[in-house]
Amino acid sequence: MTHGGPSASGYRVGSELLVRSIPGLPTIEPGADLCALIGSAIEAAGIELVDGDILVVASKVLSRAEGRFVDLGAIEPGDEALTLAKEVDKDPRLVELIVRESLEVSRKATGALIVRHRLGFISANAGIDASNAAPPDADSSTGPWVLTLPTDPDRTAAFLREELSARFNARIAVLITDSWGRPFRRGTVGFALGVSGLPPVWDRRGSFDRHGRELEATESAVADSIAAAADLVAGQADEGRPVTLVRGIVFPCSEEGADALLRDPKQDLYA
Amino acid sequence: MTHGGPSASGYRVGSELLVRSIPGLPTIEPGADLCALIGSAIEAAGIELVDGDILVVASKVLSRAEGRFVDLGAIEPGDEALTLAKEVDKDPRLVELIVRESLEVSRKATGALIVRHRLGFISANAGIDASNAAPPDADSSTGPWVLTLPTDPDRTAAFLREELSARFNARIAVLITDSWGRPFRRGTVGFALGVSGLPPVWDRRGSFDRHGRELEATESAVADSIAAAADLVAGQADEGRPVTLVRGIVFPCSEEGADALLRDPKQDLYA
Repeated sequence: MTHGGPSASGYRVGSELLVRSIPGLPTIEPGADLCALIGSAIEAAGIELVDGDILVVASKVLSRAEGRFVDLGAIEPGDEALTLAKEVDKDPRLVELIVRESLEVSRKATGALIVRHRLGFISANAGIDASNAAPPDADSSTGPWVLTLPTDPDRTAAFLREELSARFNARIAVLITDSWGRPFRRGTVGFALGVSGLPPVWDRRGSFDRHGRELEATESAVADSIAAAADLVAGQADEGRPVTLVRGIVFPCSEEGADALLRDPKQDLYA
Repeated sequence: MTHGGPSASGYRVGSELLVRSIPGLPTIEPGADLCALIGSAIEAAGIELVDGDILVVASKVLSRAEGRFVDLGAIEPGDEALTLAKEVDKDPRLVELIVRESLEVSRKATGALIVRHRLGFISANAGIDASNAAPPDADSSTGPWVLTLPTDPDRTAAFLREELSARFNARIAVLITDSWGRPFRRGTVGFALGVSGLPPVWDRRGSFDRHGRELEATESAVADSIAAAADLVAGQADEGRPVTLVRGIVFPCSEEGADALLRDPKQDLYA
């Protein structure tokens, strides 16, 4: 074989994929031991994790466990936020928080503020969630409350992967996901915010068709595709099922994080 | 219940999704009866389609069945294509074909030509596939050959849905899909090019969280998420498995096509 080479070439397409939500997880409170709760829910569902299983965890439960609630009532918008808020017609306190969570503004229009999040990806409102976002002990004199994205999804993915691999004696991978809108197309789809244990991008350079021509689309965003699949069973509100098991993909081990999915802005014709 | 209302509110999140590629499909030749071949492959695999099943078909097999092969050697580039080809450093004959398949150029740079396809969506090179694209009877004095996208994916999806629903006596939905790159993010994911029988977008306006706040992300691009999930088992080259069964999503009947997934360019901050 003269093909080979790329680091993520060990992916294999299975013929059957199972996407199964894990029931029984309680509402996650700040300080919760997410790892123990997920492990117990998996066991309580009678599921035995095996080598190659992928656990997909909605970022919202990380945010809640990390206590990433913010009381907008306690936020003092700065000059930049005040100007921007007027321009896009949004709550200046929310805009101040979006600015703090972001590296730069990508696009703005009335009602819309799309930014590059501090973690590097582009999203509306820096991924801040304003639905059902009050902490459990919130005083009625506080708020409105919102929930910001978790601090370091790659690190939490790596921690969950290590702990749950040990608990189930299985080599698993973990994705932390959210769902967002996109340019050009209506509706939200799932994306990978944090990755541990599988190559986020399947680099197929070096793959040839049967006439010996190199395949054109040579990189598959496997982690994002898995996130989109899990989103189909995960639901959306807190009543949703934030942990999903995906079984049936053969992948090589990898220590790459979710930033492998980010296009270099210099190479991005829409940046 | 005072929620309800939107046309696509009948979706229900299942707890388990099965994504299974259908084996045994031959290489599709121009003029092939795709419907009969897919039906026979499903039966030969011992699968019985049931109400609510979703069949996902890679657009490439439609293109092949429709004979959408184009011999670049027989193409005479016009002035617009010649100028554009110089600008982006691509084969002027390929650029001529891209222009013919497109409504407008969205972005251009060396090696990259991103257009709005005649079907309305944004994609690189108008989705033209240059790998493994020669028709079976191609003379060695012809070519290079490329394969353009199918003529009317929604219509073919509707035809396959009607015929296969009758054959299996089951109410199914059909998606026609392809995979493309995206702004901001590396790697390709699956998208829906043609839709019949399910609402492409799950309109969740009117859904409330348990504190009575309306959910923020109110539209899920279900058809694109299913396409992304199917892409994980479909492979990519002709050796891939172009038909996938997705089972486990409860959806309301719909006659909407894939254009329901297109964001109005006037509302698109990246247009």
